[in-house]
Amino acid sequence: MKKEIRVLGIDDGSFSRKDNRVPIVGVMLRGNSYLEGVFKTEVDVDGTDATDILSTLICGAKYRGQLRAMLLDGIALGGFNIVDIYTLSTNTGIPVITVTRDKPDFKKIKAALMKHFDDWEHRWALVSAGKMARIEEPYPIYIKYAGITFESAKQIIKLFTIRGAVPEPLRIAHLIATGITRGESYGRA
Amino acid sequence: MKKEIRVLGIDDGSFSRKDNRVPIVGVMLRGNSYLEGVFKTEVDVDGTDATDILSTLICGAKYRGQLRAMLLDGIALGGFNIVDIYTLSTNTGIPVITVTRDKPDFKKIKAALMKHFDDWEHRWALVSAGKMARIEEPYPIYIKYAGITFESAKQIIKLFTIRGAVPEPLRIAHLIATGITRGESYGRA
Repeated sequence: MKKEIRVLGIDDGSFSRKDNRVPIVGVMLRGNSYLEGVFKTEVDVDGTDATDILSTLICGAKYRGQLRAMLLDGIALGGFNIVDIYTLSTNTGIPVITVTRDKPDFKKIKAALMKHFDDWEHRWALVSAGKMARIEEPYPIYIKYAGITFESAKQIIKLFTIRGAVPEPLRIAHLIATGITRGESYGRA
Repeated sequence: MKKEIRVLGIDDGSFSRKDNRVPIVGVMLRGNSYLEGVFKTEVDVDGTDATDILSTLICGAKYRGQLRAMLLDGIALGGFNIVDIYTLSTNTGIPVITVTRDKPDFKKIKAALMKHFDDWEHRWALVSAGKMARIEEPYPIYIKYAGITFESAKQIIKLFTIRGAVPEPLRIAHLIATGITRGESYGRA
């Protein structure tokens, strides 16, 4: 795989349950360090619009044709606004990879969905769709992926991780998203 | 000079004269490519608060003690909200370097200030304070500087410029500031 491929990283800003909407930041990196573009949109806190809003954002982006993959920090934005990664990948023509450092506690997630949402079955279907895979290198993390093979997803994670567990597009999207919502960014431990 | 020093780049977002305030983004880079922090604040369009607001932002930043310099895209933010670079450097204890690609047309700037502002003499004093110097490498640009020698300012510009004329902290601050105000960033020609 070429080193200079372009990958989009997407993360949400800080929010509280009193907020209706939460800012979403996308960053396009070429190779593992050259920032080429920044996107901003927003989704409903605990809403159901994340898949549509990301699809629209990416389909309208100037560089869409050059994107090789998009990375998400987990499968949800703004709380429990679950992303349908298969639909997102189909809508945009771009592979989607979700990254989580710790193995999600699916029992707990299901219980929270059942407690808080009338449409919990639909949300749970999106959360539990597909298989979660563990990657060992360069750092143990868990991924889900759509529109891409496991081998290619692994290569992309490896290429874009230069320090610690978090691939650069997600690390940078996180810094920007927290910086613009809180005034100063905060790191991931 | 060590390569891994930390430099802050500051730029404003897109705005129109109908807006009262404009977002300001600061980015802290370590070396010429590793993003470590993102800051956001805002100033009045055509106001007089830029020096105070940047002073407060930087004095409150976690990493202030590690910053070796801050770069500004020209001497004004949000239109004609002129930064007093000497006061900013004194307030924060951090050298300030303004960067402009083309030599500013000072006659035109003075005329615009006289036309639009009652306090044009004060603003003009800030614009015209100090000497503008031309740097040839790695790309011809013009700088002003406060709290730092010309030699050190030149070295910092050289260290942090990796492509084209714009040092990386300013290029990245620009991408983020335009991205969050317009939804998608736009480049500098």
